[in-house]
Amino acid sequence: MAPATLRRAQLHAGVSDPVLDTMNFLNEITHRYPRAVSFAPGRPYDGFFDVEEVFRHIRRYLDHLEERGATPAEIRDALFQYGPTGGQIRELVTRSLREDEDIDVPPEAVVVTVGCQEAIFLTLRALLAGPRDTLLVSSPCYVGITGAARLLGVEPTPVAEGPDGFRSARLEAAVAAEKARGRRPRAFYVVPDHSNPSGFTMPLRERHALLDLARREDFLILEDSPYRLVSPGRQLPTLKSLDHDRRVVHLGSYSKTLFPGARVGFAVADQVVVDEDGGQGLLADELVKIKSMVTVNTSPLSQAAVAGMLLAAGGRTSELNTDTAAYYGEAMRAILKRLDACFPEPERSALGVRWNEPDGGFFLTLDVPFPADNAALVRSAEDHGVIWTPMSYFYPQGGGERSLRLSVSYLTQADITEGTARLTRFITAEAARAR
Amino acid sequence: MAPATLRRAQLHAGVSDPVLDTMNFLNEITHRYPRAVSFAPGRPYDGFFDVEEVFRHIRRYLDHLEERGATPAEIRDALFQYGPTGGQIRELVTRSLREDEDIDVPPEAVVVTVGCQEAIFLTLRALLAGPRDTLLVSSPCYVGITGAARLLGVEPTPVAEGPDGFRSARLEAAVAAEKARGRRPRAFYVVPDHSNPSGFTMPLRERHALLDLARREDFLILEDSPYRLVSPGRQLPTLKSLDHDRRVVHLGSYSKTLFPGARVGFAVADQVVVDEDGGQGLLADELVKIKSMVTVNTSPLSQAAVAGMLLAAGGRTSELNTDTAAYYGEAMRAILKRLDACFPEPERSALGVRWNEPDGGFFLTLDVPFPADNAALVRSAEDHGVIWTPMSYFYPQGGGERSLRLSVSYLTQADITEGTARLTRFITAEAARAR
Repeated sequence: MAPATLRRAQLHAGVSDPVLDTMNFLNEITHRYPRAVSFAPGRPYDGFFDVEEVFRHIRRYLDHLEERGATPAEIRDALFQYGPTGGQIRELVTRSLREDEDIDVPPEAVVVTVGCQEAIFLTLRALLAGPRDTLLVSSPCYVGITGAARLLGVEPTPVAEGPDGFRSARLEAAVAAEKARGRRPRAFYVVPDHSNPSGFTMPLRERHALLDLARREDFLILEDSPYRLVSPGRQLPTLKSLDHDRRVVHLGSYSKTLFPGARVGFAVADQVVVDEDGGQGLLADELVKIKSMVTVNTSPLSQAAVAGMLLAAGGRTSELNTDTAAYYGEAMRAILKRLDACFPEPERSALGVRWNEPDGGFFLTLDVPFPADNAALVRSAEDHGVIWTPMSYFYPQGGGERSLRLSVSYLTQADITEGTARLTRFITAEAARAR
Repeated sequence: MAPATLRRAQLHAGVSDPVLDTMNFLNEITHRYPRAVSFAPGRPYDGFFDVEEVFRHIRRYLDHLEERGATPAEIRDALFQYGPTGGQIRELVTRSLREDEDIDVPPEAVVVTVGCQEAIFLTLRALLAGPRDTLLVSSPCYVGITGAARLLGVEPTPVAEGPDGFRSARLEAAVAAEKARGRRPRAFYVVPDHSNPSGFTMPLRERHALLDLARREDFLILEDSPYRLVSPGRQLPTLKSLDHDRRVVHLGSYSKTLFPGARVGFAVADQVVVDEDGGQGLLADELVKIKSMVTVNTSPLSQAAVAGMLLAAGGRTSELNTDTAAYYGEAMRAILKRLDACFPEPERSALGVRWNEPDGGFFLTLDVPFPADNAALVRSAEDHGVIWTPMSYFYPQGGGERSLRLSVSYLTQADITEGTARLTRFITAEAARAR
């Protein structure tokens, strides 16, 4: 009998999202050229991980439960059974938010999720309720926000970064344009610190301007900021810590600060939700309901490992990341220094090469004088042994055609030196080719 | 400043799903009457769990990776890093499916998910693509399928069980009715073995009839069968093992056979998907794409614990469940015996009390001669110290008003004896009240 055959056109449009195909293409290239130096992956460096630590972290959390009076049966259930849908480590998460980020919310405003991606997905599902509801995104943007929105049948409205990153005036214009065409802006998604993909950080005055705008125009801000605590030096305050009227849903990740394999993230959603009959709850309660139909709850085993790590550092995620932040900071300084050496002025300007200079995070943007498309990427990998991400992948509706995203999180200093040299040869060859 | 306030009516309708409120009500009752015997929870019995085992399971998987030639860095990454979105233990899952369930599929047809709930959610998202697409569900049904469908804006079409459970003739009529009104039935969801909530098992001839019907009418069968391997005695073949033309998406759970806290399940989706340009892939590939935008991947730490358990039993989940299956089997026999003793004939018929007699699983249905609603549940808990689940919770569009679901999975024999006595007093009092 012939097997059941489905036509892709009859599956949900989300599976035909071009973003997914481009990311697959990138993975394939990485696989095909294993000896290339790759500036593509946004994975955290794993040299600081130690397998034995996982066992100690889980044990530490179980000991903590015991110290707090849990019976052996309760400890067993905390590991083996279904747990509360909102999460069983919410107190520890809120303590870390208070001590690391000056974000002060009650545990019931937090939902522990399967990585930050689920926090994004749940929040979008709650807020994008009708056909007029609009999601605005700072553009270029993380593919996870575009992809999640498309799964819900929503095409995000991009708000282009300027040459120095986000500016609230552009958002204000975009919100006005959306309203003028009868749409209702519900939320604006942004990575304010060391953005993925561009590497820009939002200045303090823009943070205040954004919060003002959200209040005036009645939308929520979705703040996703996974690179803060793994960046060197003092960070600007989070939007959530500046948020006095609960305009910000803070989307949290432990993938960079603790480890990706836990798949533990969270949403801070302390917005008030009012029923028709006057009953009140928090947006977090609504996210919990949605979560119960998506993943039921986040693995208690994973939560135990995360909790053990938080406990190890007296509840401060930042304490755990002194070494990693220094490591990434050195990587970023190294690539900037190498780029300066490889493209000195006035040759740089003559060639038309430019980059921004992030002081943290994993990424920077490099503008080049030729189309940085898939064909160029193949030539780069094949002829020069260097891989990068076309910035155009991160524009939901076109843009970034002559820019690359370079990630430094997963490379050694030696890789960075060699990779930058290869990149220079590639860029020089392509520029000559384009002329 | 007044905090941002959202009106519930402006959030997605999925959060106002009455199913969510009823389940909350049930939790609240359970919390309010801690000394009541509760036939409500579908949680697995946890007396067989042992905290120390978790450490050994994870260690066993890491040793297995080492035996297969993984380097220390690879082993470290397998635990700490992001893993492949489709799952890193797919080989072990397919081996267990082959040995336990006679389901023979390649690893690439499997997607490892955050519990069975995510497998349900991803599958529905892939298949429910347009406004004409219909999901049929055997009714009464698990709330997770209704809730997931509603998050995607789809109201499932119920196909009522008969007095002995599912009958394909009823589904055939429902499919015809859907088509007659211009709708396109994409899938039919069913728990063929020891169903949640009713407890019925689909006979072998109905399994064959269902597969024939799916082929003739061109829809997929979503098979969710978490109670098979924790039920005593020989089980009927899964729909998937009888499926010669890939009509069945098998939705797998390890929550009952291994442990819920892992939050590891899977989908077996070996259907062929054809592109416009003739390219081919599997439905599993499409589920992987959707998963990348919902949870990115299933926790490698959780997968390691599950893999270690599978390895402990030579890859056979059934081996691990000899004791649990016997335990649940005794619980089911005990309640049936107690009900027989408490409601002897001819009093039983005179009173109008009836129940089915599942030979496995966690649940049975008890019909009573009065409305088994929330008000009756409160009286039952308050006056008689016994809790159960109104069967009406499991009917998406009405039904089950005079039936209770009784779960025996989480009770000791002593609880069952005492609980059944309390239930008898409650039913007798309510029947008198109704007269």
